[in-house]
Amino acid sequence: MKTVKQMIQETEMSKAYYQAVFGIEKEGLRVNDSGQLAVTDHSKKFGNRTYHPYIQTDYSESQLELITPPLNSIQESYNWLTALHDVVLQTLPEDEAIWPISMPMVLPNEKDISVAKLDNKADVLYRETLTRKYGKKKQMISGVHYNFELDSQLILRLYESQTEYTTLTSFKSMIYLKLAKNFLRYRWLLTYLLGASPIVDESFFTSQELPKKYVRSIRSSHYGYVNQSEVSVSFETIEDYVQSLQNMVAKGFLSEEKEFYSAVRFRGTKDAEELLTKGISYLELRSFDLDPFDSAGMSKGTMEFVHLFCLYMIWMDETATMKEIEIGEEMSQLTAMENPVSVSQFQEEGLELLKQMENMIHLTTDSEAASRCLQEVRNQLKNPTLTIAARMVQEIEEKGSYIEFALELAKQYKDEATKRPYNLRGFDYLEMSTQLLIFDALQKGVQVEVLDSQDQFLKLTMGQHVEFVKNGNMTAKDSYIAPLIMENKTVTKKILDSAGFHVPAGEEYTTIDEAKAAFWRYKNKSVVVKPKSTNYGLGISIFKQAPVKNDYEQAIEIAFKEDIAVLVEEYISGTEYRFFVLDGKVSAILLRIPANVVGDGQKTIKELVQDKNKDPLRGEEKHRSPLEKIALGEIEQLMLKGQGYTIESIPEKDKRVYLRENSNISTGGDSIDVTDEIDESYKKAAIRMTETIGAKISGIDLIIPDPTIPSENEQHGYTVIEANFNPAMHMHAYVYKGKGRRLTMEVLNMLFPELNEDVSSTGKTH
Amino acid sequence: MKTVKQMIQETEMSKAYYQAVFGIEKEGLRVNDSGQLAVTDHSKKFGNRTYHPYIQTDYSESQLELITPPLNSIQESYNWLTALHDVVLQTLPEDEAIWPISMPMVLPNEKDISVAKLDNKADVLYRETLTRKYGKKKQMISGVHYNFELDSQLILRLYESQTEYTTLTSFKSMIYLKLAKNFLRYRWLLTYLLGASPIVDESFFTSQELPKKYVRSIRSSHYGYVNQSEVSVSFETIEDYVQSLQNMVAKGFLSEEKEFYSAVRFRGTKDAEELLTKGISYLELRSFDLDPFDSAGMSKGTMEFVHLFCLYMIWMDETATMKEIEIGEEMSQLTAMENPVSVSQFQEEGLELLKQMENMIHLTTDSEAASRCLQEVRNQLKNPTLTIAARMVQEIEEKGSYIEFALELAKQYKDEATKRPYNLRGFDYLEMSTQLLIFDALQKGVQVEVLDSQDQFLKLTMGQHVEFVKNGNMTAKDSYIAPLIMENKTVTKKILDSAGFHVPAGEEYTTIDEAKAAFWRYKNKSVVVKPKSTNYGLGISIFKQAPVKNDYEQAIEIAFKEDIAVLVEEYISGTEYRFFVLDGKVSAILLRIPANVVGDGQKTIKELVQDKNKDPLRGEEKHRSPLEKIALGEIEQLMLKGQGYTIESIPEKDKRVYLRENSNISTGGDSIDVTDEIDESYKKAAIRMTETIGAKISGIDLIIPDPTIPSENEQHGYTVIEANFNPAMHMHAYVYKGKGRRLTMEVLNMLFPELNEDVSSTGKTH
Repeated sequence: MKTVKQMIQETEMSKAYYQAVFGIEKEGLRVNDSGQLAVTDHSKKFGNRTYHPYIQTDYSESQLELITPPLNSIQESYNWLTALHDVVLQTLPEDEAIWPISMPMVLPNEKDISVAKLDNKADVLYRETLTRKYGKKKQMISGVHYNFELDSQLILRLYESQTEYTTLTSFKSMIYLKLAKNFLRYRWLLTYLLGASPIVDESFFTSQELPKKYVRSIRSSHYGYVNQSEVSVSFETIEDYVQSLQNMVAKGFLSEEKEFYSAVRFRGTKDAEELLTKGISYLELRSFDLDPFDSAGMSKGTMEFVHLFCLYMIWMDETATMKEIEIGEEMSQLTAMENPVSVSQFQEEGLELLKQMENMIHLTTDSEAASRCLQEVRNQLKNPTLTIAARMVQEIEEKGSYIEFALELAKQYKDEATKRPYNLRGFDYLEMSTQLLIFDALQKGVQVEVLDSQDQFLKLTMGQHVEFVKNGNMTAKDSYIAPLIMENKTVTKKILDSAGFHVPAGEEYTTIDEAKAAFWRYKNKSVVVKPKSTNYGLGISIFKQAPVKNDYEQAIEIAFKEDIAVLVEEYISGTEYRFFVLDGKVSAILLRIPANVVGDGQKTIKELVQDKNKDPLRGEEKHRSPLEKIALGEIEQLMLKGQGYTIESIPEKDKRVYLRENSNISTGGDSIDVTDEIDESYKKAAIRMTETIGAKISGIDLIIPDPTIPSENEQHGYTVIEANFNPAMHMHAYVYKGKGRRLTMEVLNMLFPELNEDVSSTGKTH
Repeated sequence: MKTVKQMIQETEMSKAYYQAVFGIEKEGLRVNDSGQLAVTDHSKKFGNRTYHPYIQTDYSESQLELITPPLNSIQESYNWLTALHDVVLQTLPEDEAIWPISMPMVLPNEKDISVAKLDNKADVLYRETLTRKYGKKKQMISGVHYNFELDSQLILRLYESQTEYTTLTSFKSMIYLKLAKNFLRYRWLLTYLLGASPIVDESFFTSQELPKKYVRSIRSSHYGYVNQSEVSVSFETIEDYVQSLQNMVAKGFLSEEKEFYSAVRFRGTKDAEELLTKGISYLELRSFDLDPFDSAGMSKGTMEFVHLFCLYMIWMDETATMKEIEIGEEMSQLTAMENPVSVSQFQEEGLELLKQMENMIHLTTDSEAASRCLQEVRNQLKNPTLTIAARMVQEIEEKGSYIEFALELAKQYKDEATKRPYNLRGFDYLEMSTQLLIFDALQKGVQVEVLDSQDQFLKLTMGQHVEFVKNGNMTAKDSYIAPLIMENKTVTKKILDSAGFHVPAGEEYTTIDEAKAAFWRYKNKSVVVKPKSTNYGLGISIFKQAPVKNDYEQAIEIAFKEDIAVLVEEYISGTEYRFFVLDGKVSAILLRIPANVVGDGQKTIKELVQDKNKDPLRGEEKHRSPLEKIALGEIEQLMLKGQGYTIESIPEKDKRVYLRENSNISTGGDSIDVTDEIDESYKKAAIRMTETIGAKISGIDLIIPDPTIPSENEQHGYTVIEANFNPAMHMHAYVYKGKGRRLTMEVLNMLFPELNEDVSSTGKTH
């Protein structure tokens, strides 16, 4: 028979060999400020656990389980895991964090540990069985499960290149069975590298004695989360596996098949029986301790090494026998109990494995990144102080206890996840509004797929209900024509005007002569002359005083240089407000004011700017945060000069000094939420305008001289300047002053009204 | 008191003075092939006369009345009038046209003339009264009514510049009353210029004697459509006018106020009484014969002169007294009865009027166009043979009878209006699909407003129901997200793929390395490598045979020069069909084949191309017709060379020779409607794809090797290549071969389902 190695080389599938699907499940206990188990309920903000695909509770109500969807690359998987941590940590109460290591903190009495409050009766009963059998405390051990599936096209091509296996299913099962067997034989190396539970509080064990010294992994040792000794399942063949597993359940050694805590599980079927017909779809590798040095519980480097390790388990010529598997299990146990700073007793075998893996890489992708990854591992194998467990021991010694060590990290990760709430790490290559919307979807358990990242195109799914979203709020709830109306300023104006709203008087002209001949219409008015499609303000002339004929004609000529159509509009003075209208409501009103500082009588303008720029809402990079740093460039200095200042001037106390004329956020302006301060009449007008256009979502810009005086039909208190489709949402969420408005959540609720139904019926079972 | 002239000059409103609103009503009899009155019913295709704003019947069922909306320029008014003629002439049966002169053809017996079959009882009763009073035949005289309104801002500014009138209403009425009085005094000049009814068949008059010779205007003479002699209404003041008119009705001399056939009517109120409070809004000038030399019944030049004439009637210092009005009426009557080739008996007054008008122009806009217009008129005043009536007489003499003369013109205008049915004259600055949609709306009586011509933005209105349309089929019926999905090829493909439709296998890559590494996926397949956003085919490589590695990698590099993302897709062979899906139906399927000619064994390729290019569907200008002329440029000659031909080769009989590889219509390809020939299974698939995207309208491109073999779920007979938003409609309407499909009418019916309800309930009264 051909070896897998041969098949891959013959079919030139070397690169394809590295294609795989990954899925991570990561458990973690909630911990409070003082390092105790958080015994609060799983937050209702996480929606409904009955279907939540990403944020679940494992055994206990306090034990979070974060689940990534199956993804095509390690980078994506790691991104998702990071994002889920951001969502959870930002949603938890301020005094709660996630315990970053596998072994728990000092636990309360068993009676104070709540089993997860699930709706499904069977899930609750199962947890009761576990409690009886293992005790509550052991169930609190947390870890990472790594789901691994080879590319389906690859499997197909390899299958086609051989003749021994006559069905794709049997071929695929052979591959995965080989992987599983060899994994069990060699997994001691992962225990050595990734073991990260050197110690636990003495109160943890009620019936067993504590290890006397630091070890590599309590969790992976016999102290850990293992089946009772009667449990014995064969990996010889699929048939043996199914039969022996079913036998264990029949004998009552296991309450259910899923109670079998092997380091590898066969996945993709509803039960073992089905493996006989459907075969194995993918593997779940379960032997990983939480890595406290990575906020996600497993580093990207580790994920990559596990991938290479799995590939080598397939690539190698031999397949471990049952006897060898037993030896492998024993080797892992021994490794788990080794002193973290000692050299592995199996170092030689480990180095040989790495050499063979290096060879595999050389014969396939010859990837430098993969070689570097192996080199890292080789260093750790040679120098045990570089392993996670050894590094933990060192830090635990320094801090005085592992509780201190872990709590400090928990707080650090909480802090990192909450300090830039406008960014969702792992998705921060997207626009801010899209990041916020994804955050909300992940929080509520709406499935998210990024269909196109350049286009900010998302697919959101709840059960059978699918919605597509582009740029955060372009959805099926809006009609095709509404944004097209808003995109065309002339059309918008005509429609709003004929519906009786107050728009700036003015007309569109398509010839210079016609525009000049219309001077009589404007000669007593303040006007703006502008190209129909305005770009960066080119070609715009503003006459705050009524123009004289010559100036007007010149302005017309300038504007026509930029466009084939020119608008002449009444100039409106007053303050401009952005009304965000969503689904028949004004969800937010924002006032933007130009970049400014307020004097304290002591600091220079330069210092005041520096202070103001420290606000984390003013990001380091452009367009990555809800506010921008105030610059001190030419324009700002000119603006200061016009007011008699330099950047070294010291403005008197409470004196507001402007550094820009324009109020754009992008040039350092302030955003002020005034939703609750504007008279209802203006909100009603904005809502009616949005209805007139036929839109669900619109950003209506009104100029209002005094928003406390109600607008009346005869005496409009506003002028409507623009109706914007796809209005920005992030700028309302995190404001310089006032209350932030979570508009993305409103979009999500509009798309999925069932989200709100669910919250009110937590009792039902799906 | 200030004169109007002074007001205009003082307020510098000279240019504004030429701003006005125009509306034309034009009557015309339907005539059949043999020059007889068409006694068929008003076509049901014109929708419902109860509300039709544009196409009505006047007195008789055979008497069309075409009505333009109020418009801001003469050019637009003339465009609309032309368009309405196009709509009517294309809708009438093939053997019917519009009689182009005011006096009727030889009429049938009175009993065979149907009074208009209207739903409204009062309208019918009024027509019965007219029949009794004037006889049916006199009611068949047709003419043009010219509605004229000054710019409202102008009136306001002039009002503000004076002190004598204390209400805007009284001021406005003064202006219009002055215009009316002077118009009645001087309208003889218009009778001279525009009189166009020199003769009528002797059967027309039953009780009166015929004029013995050619005259300028029978219609404007005492032979014409005039009130009985008892009718006398004062124009002295508004009050006098209202009182005397009401008096005439009270006395029974008039059956209703609207029976008063003055050359000027005051408009804008529901009855005369209301004039006392609301004042005059605009004037209706009713003294115009149909101009047979213009297909619209009145030329643009005439419209312009009438405008200048009206302005001068306001501008002049004097206002005609009642006595002078009587003189004016007499002068018009005398003029009407003059020999068309004789010099006007009032030539001197006419030349003086023109001189004063010239002066007005000089003092205001100094417009060259206006001066040219006056020069034209001056020529006609000096040389009577240039007048319409004189030119008619000459042609009537040549043809032998006025019936021959008029019938020939009627047929000519019919021909001109029908030979390019894909163009709607007056709106031919718009895209073809938008033209067709406007045509359909005008036909059915849906109100049309072009909100933005660059953007093809229409407002369509029926009663309270408003719909906006951009580019012919972008409407509120479609959702915002559907076109965004279709715009993004990757997203479309992902969505259709995951819904189980057959898309070309392939992936998107964002780095060259990643794309190259994926070579294994494609090395056994025909593939296309292309930049994600394709522009004019740049950067595309097609491998009809599976590529070798080097070529593949080169293709990847070429594609990445054009875009930051590259698609590698399975190459699909077969024929491509465009499925036009609308509202859950496949409305049309089009096959496009490359530019070609079919040999006859005699003609050269060059000659065959010339013949084929004579088809009126292949327009003179690019992109202005449903098909394009086949070129004989470099590309075509190369293509011929590849087949062993030159343009001088003579292909054998029935041999099809292709001149292009691509099947685009824009390069001379043929369009073939195959809607009825494609298996239902493909239509169902296209409909389900459109539903999956969530679209109402989509152009689905399927490649189908054999459309007679049904597509099955397991064995798709198609591959879906693209889903197009805003798919072209005109190319389905007028095809090279097969049945044309009127998709714009389907769009209209989708937007206004009430259009179909109306047709089935012609009996109801609104």
